[in-house]
Amino acid sequence: MTPEEFRKLGHALVDWVADYRERLPSLPVMSPVAPGAIRARFPAEPPAEGGRLAEAIAALDDAILPGITHWNHPAFFAYFPSNTSLASVLGDLVAAGLGAQGMSWQTSPAATEVEEVVMGWIRRMIGLPPELVGVVQDTASTSTLTALLCARERASGFSQNGAGLQAGAAPLVVYASDQAHSSIEKAALLAGFGKAHLRLVGTDDAHALRLDLLERAVAEDLARGNRPCALVAATGTTSTTALDPVAGMAELAERHGMWLHVDAALAGTAMVLPECRWMWAGVERADSIVFNPHKWMGIGFDFSAYFVRDPQHLVRVMSTNPSYLRTAHDAVVNNFRDWGIPLGRRFRALKGWFHLVDEGVIAMQARIRRDLANAQWLKEQVDATTGWERLAPVPLQTLCLRHVPGGALDERALAEHNLGIARRVNDGGRAYVTPSVLKGKQMIRVSIGATGTERADVERVWAELREAAGRR
Amino acid sequence: MTPEEFRKLGHALVDWVADYRERLPSLPVMSPVAPGAIRARFPAEPPAEGGRLAEAIAALDDAILPGITHWNHPAFFAYFPSNTSLASVLGDLVAAGLGAQGMSWQTSPAATEVEEVVMGWIRRMIGLPPELVGVVQDTASTSTLTALLCARERASGFSQNGAGLQAGAAPLVVYASDQAHSSIEKAALLAGFGKAHLRLVGTDDAHALRLDLLERAVAEDLARGNRPCALVAATGTTSTTALDPVAGMAELAERHGMWLHVDAALAGTAMVLPECRWMWAGVERADSIVFNPHKWMGIGFDFSAYFVRDPQHLVRVMSTNPSYLRTAHDAVVNNFRDWGIPLGRRFRALKGWFHLVDEGVIAMQARIRRDLANAQWLKEQVDATTGWERLAPVPLQTLCLRHVPGGALDERALAEHNLGIARRVNDGGRAYVTPSVLKGKQMIRVSIGATGTERADVERVWAELREAAGRR
Repeated sequence: MTPEEFRKLGHALVDWVADYRERLPSLPVMSPVAPGAIRARFPAEPPAEGGRLAEAIAALDDAILPGITHWNHPAFFAYFPSNTSLASVLGDLVAAGLGAQGMSWQTSPAATEVEEVVMGWIRRMIGLPPELVGVVQDTASTSTLTALLCARERASGFSQNGAGLQAGAAPLVVYASDQAHSSIEKAALLAGFGKAHLRLVGTDDAHALRLDLLERAVAEDLARGNRPCALVAATGTTSTTALDPVAGMAELAERHGMWLHVDAALAGTAMVLPECRWMWAGVERADSIVFNPHKWMGIGFDFSAYFVRDPQHLVRVMSTNPSYLRTAHDAVVNNFRDWGIPLGRRFRALKGWFHLVDEGVIAMQARIRRDLANAQWLKEQVDATTGWERLAPVPLQTLCLRHVPGGALDERALAEHNLGIARRVNDGGRAYVTPSVLKGKQMIRVSIGATGTERADVERVWAELREAAGRR
Repeated sequence: MTPEEFRKLGHALVDWVADYRERLPSLPVMSPVAPGAIRARFPAEPPAEGGRLAEAIAALDDAILPGITHWNHPAFFAYFPSNTSLASVLGDLVAAGLGAQGMSWQTSPAATEVEEVVMGWIRRMIGLPPELVGVVQDTASTSTLTALLCARERASGFSQNGAGLQAGAAPLVVYASDQAHSSIEKAALLAGFGKAHLRLVGTDDAHALRLDLLERAVAEDLARGNRPCALVAATGTTSTTALDPVAGMAELAERHGMWLHVDAALAGTAMVLPECRWMWAGVERADSIVFNPHKWMGIGFDFSAYFVRDPQHLVRVMSTNPSYLRTAHDAVVNNFRDWGIPLGRRFRALKGWFHLVDEGVIAMQARIRRDLANAQWLKEQVDATTGWERLAPVPLQTLCLRHVPGGALDERALAEHNLGIARRVNDGGRAYVTPSVLKGKQMIRVSIGATGTERADVERVWAELREAAGRR
């Protein structure tokens, strides 16, 4: 493709994206296609002749769009907000156009240094002290795996340089709450700790980790000859946005030399509001923190912010230093290839830069406060409406609801009923919510925070839910 | 930002990217900036007020471009080709604009199904049988870590569900050649095997793994009571594009129940040419294969192709299944979140689709053949020129050279001399090559394969090298 053809098709696609965002509210939120329907529109054989991109672009509306679940839709209340601002889209366009590799400083100094700048901005925005240094990872899953690998190596005196975890030493143990995200179990298993050395500690009525049970679990492990290695604290669990007691966990971590990792994947964005920072009080004592600006903050996926207290430890765990990657500047620059698992790195800081200068901190704070207020409004409606039950506090923007109709229904029937409500709402296409299970109870999660979501949209999903509860 | 503002800025940025690609040949290939120079152009404080994106865009030429090393430049001969075709840029624009999440089938069915289609196309293009099923990962580093985790779990009977690697069983051992990429050591260490259980086996004069030494190493481990677990075969090492004996390694792997992982990160693209497939004969017996379409093939970074024989095993190692991610279709669809480490996934298949329909297989084959012919041409020049030495065969597109001037220089002086040549070429800005060390010898790697690189560009880098060798 020549640059001239690129201009023509590029202009058309910019307009296509703009049109798409304009007509978003009219599209069904959840994709209605059946399995295999999108795949069936493509040939199995690769194209022998080229030159067919214009044809592919013309097919976007028919072949692709029906298969998209619209995460930027104002009626998207499922999973978690995953906003991709239009400024961020433009940043990705430039990053792709440059095609720069950010694995080492020298392979494109701007990729490294703009990342340093943007991560510094984000650190200040969420009120973390300068001892915590940031780097971009792809996801919280990868960030948490990175944290547990660093914890493992610190606790084992760099076993990776010896027999690894295969040395038969006293087993290292990882602790998190029974509400911790699945990525914590996954990371512990991939890092080789083994499920037998992962303790999922019980939670209180607000679904936050119980410090007394954690202390007891640590004491039991010590008594058994195991070695407490890492604690994962959730600031805003995925299920209910529960807030683990970070300060108390930091205290315990320090007492036993454990690594403290704070998972604020969604809630980190709320820390742009000073009035929310009590939620993770003590966070400055963590060894590592992850939050995802690609969720509520609006920087397009993937952009996960990972902050560490000791970057040299991270580098020691992750570094490889083959001769062909060495450069004259290595002593005075950061080579971010050594700050995570992948070697190659995209210029992701560009979209962060574009998003932040376009929205600005003040407007972002107003948007987050709007979402928090919308969640409080919905909470009040639920609490005031007979037949509806709220299963968790609402410190942030997620509501955990279920409908309990008149007549004595058992848990199984209640589950069927609420799954039916969620299904009817989602199939209707005018809103998208997530059915989930909380401590054995089937619930419906309503997660507020798409950039386009206004009070009227929240009123509408509430009406949809009530209506779906009536149609049994 | 409104869609209307997006249209305006988007058109301007499409033109900026087109202009950038047009003027690429006139830019210095390697960024000439000093450490800190880019960072110094940004404020340390985040922007309080928004609305400053137009300003950021206007600053691209001055603030960012000097800090870019131009990987798509026709005189880029460093590291490895990392082409980002303009069609791929357009695919990324659409993917960002949609902002879709591909973690589960239901979270955007098109993301999953187009990935299935595109990975099917790529599998056919490189001649792999249908038993090997593909999925997109971010990098070969992550793919190789995934492979070694799967190998670990197969060999240990799913230790992750028990005591992990902390069970004190007979240690598992990983084998690769002493020319294997640094990501293999990194993956083995991160997966917990420990350096003590990684065997980097010696290589022959062509820098390929010696099967006899591998057999001996396996026998020694068995005699010691260790358990051979995984073999990594390189098809095209990073340093010299050496070709490990895949068929012989497959034979050994089968005999001892070891996992065979084939790392063809760069060379996989050459397999689009049937005449190159002898290079990885036996590959159909591998348990897993990685190659990077984001290198020579032209799909923009990050797009690493990971093929596995047994996707169910991969899913069993990687799966998490929390209630809020379960959907009604799970039995009949692929949920790619369970095929790798990260949970969230971008719609990367879009750029693959766009690139492949734009270039087509026939034109891609012609381009790869052009690059191979250019490498052979340069090889002939080197071999015919007094004072130049070639340190490795040239099966693909990478040349390993050094200049040996008259007069008896020791290795140290030769290294200084060749580092000087590389530095002078790179600082000159008209070409970019990589200094590296091969078995104690300082060399200069010339890696051919940027999409824009024609014979005249290869003639020019050869002239630059000879001229720099003369200026001492």
